[in-house]
Amino acid sequence: MEAIQNIVEIKTWSALCHRRGRRIGFVPTMGALHEGHLSLVRLAKQFSDHVAVSIFVNPLQFSAQEDLAQYPQDLRSDFALLEELDIDVVFVPNPREIFPPGFQTKVGVSELSKNLCGKFRPHHFEGVATIVLKLFHWVSPDIAVFGQKDYQQCRVIEQMVQDLHLDTSILRGPIVREKDGLAMSSRNRYLNESERECAAHLYRALTLAKHLFEQGERQSDVFIHAVASYIRENMPSGQIQYIQICDALTLEDVVTIHKKCVLAVALFLGKARLIDNIELDP
Amino acid sequence: MEAIQNIVEIKTWSALCHRRGRRIGFVPTMGALHEGHLSLVRLAKQFSDHVAVSIFVNPLQFSAQEDLAQYPQDLRSDFALLEELDIDVVFVPNPREIFPPGFQTKVGVSELSKNLCGKFRPHHFEGVATIVLKLFHWVSPDIAVFGQKDYQQCRVIEQMVQDLHLDTSILRGPIVREKDGLAMSSRNRYLNESERECAAHLYRALTLAKHLFEQGERQSDVFIHAVASYIRENMPSGQIQYIQICDALTLEDVVTIHKKCVLAVALFLGKARLIDNIELDP
Repeated sequence: MEAIQNIVEIKTWSALCHRRGRRIGFVPTMGALHEGHLSLVRLAKQFSDHVAVSIFVNPLQFSAQEDLAQYPQDLRSDFALLEELDIDVVFVPNPREIFPPGFQTKVGVSELSKNLCGKFRPHHFEGVATIVLKLFHWVSPDIAVFGQKDYQQCRVIEQMVQDLHLDTSILRGPIVREKDGLAMSSRNRYLNESERECAAHLYRALTLAKHLFEQGERQSDVFIHAVASYIRENMPSGQIQYIQICDALTLEDVVTIHKKCVLAVALFLGKARLIDNIELDP
Repeated sequence: MEAIQNIVEIKTWSALCHRRGRRIGFVPTMGALHEGHLSLVRLAKQFSDHVAVSIFVNPLQFSAQEDLAQYPQDLRSDFALLEELDIDVVFVPNPREIFPPGFQTKVGVSELSKNLCGKFRPHHFEGVATIVLKLFHWVSPDIAVFGQKDYQQCRVIEQMVQDLHLDTSILRGPIVREKDGLAMSSRNRYLNESERECAAHLYRALTLAKHLFEQGERQSDVFIHAVASYIRENMPSGQIQYIQICDALTLEDVVTIHKKCVLAVALFLGKARLIDNIELDP
């Protein structure tokens, strides 16, 4: 595994792979890797000849009051985990190279960034899209893998790739969960022991909704009410940010479920903001 | 000269050039070609092996009250002019392919888009940057040429290329003028005979400023006052939109000229909005 820190080197590596007719798989991450990330890397390996993983805590996607300064970083552990997966390149770009003086170009995917997390994190997806496009320019991946836990992020990136006609196929990796159902996330490290235990109820709430769906329920407000009640009862210290049912493609709110939707939840528990989702596909 | 209308074909052409180690020169235009455009094409030819010119009236860079519907189009004349210059490809993309249903990704270069034309055309440069990035993705040019008449556009594109670390060098072509000094522009076709004659005074006003500069003047307000007075006196039907002296790199207003600046003017004359500029370099 080669560690690359600058843009010229990653471009050179990418050009060499392409010249040899090899397919590049790419997994952009913010480090603090867990089994969720590793599953994305395995997916990338399955569909490409060479895999690059980037580790970059992207300041553009954090707002002033968010956890940029506290965001977990553990390069040594990340490298060890990636080494085991036998990938080709770990790309750890230098922020000063990514954001040269005068940097001011941003990429926005307007409609898909408005709802759900975008409502509460107004420049988050602009920050994500901007950095992902930059990374794509350097790595020129044939495929790139994103985790479905960040459902809105998946849609934003898919739409950007479609709108800009980029030569990269986006794959989604399914949500990887702890044994008790909690979706894996680097931010789970913020939870203390009792919060961690309580956090498992978020997935149980989604499972409850899935059950209702399988019984034939199609009205969004019924799901939202059921999930909210379950969370209020079982996670009394949780602060719900949103519970929404949205069209799986447009992410617009849906009143009655006629086609594939996503039920998405965001809540604060202690210092952690947890998000999770399930698809409801009639 | 090959005419290409779809994205797959232009990508294929570009990939073939690159595989053969040839340098692609690219001149994006909105058609209604005049000697100004042709000078850019000649510059592109000089610095590359194969030249592509795109013709696309980009709706994103017009606001609702602007002249999108009236913008001159004359593909037959454009093709004939390009044919004479012996370029390789004229790329006339299909708007439906450029803007597929659901299209919503925009690229903004924030600081450089704020002043000058950007103050009066709020989404103009976002529209320009978005379409230019898309074209760059398909054509993958080694060099791309833009006219210095659109000074702010040059800076926006240069900054975008720098911020996104694109592999395209931006060249600027100098302003090409009619015999009486009027900067060539597709929009000069909007001028009637007497307006056309009067329009030449815009360049005379800039020449006056250049003269003051050569005599040692460095105070922006002196230039602005002199240019405004000249225009009001000699172009009584002209409506000045702005006269500004800005730092040539940041495009921020400058009080005293210490380093390279641009004196830029925009005014309405009849149905035409004319822009022109000169650099003042101490």
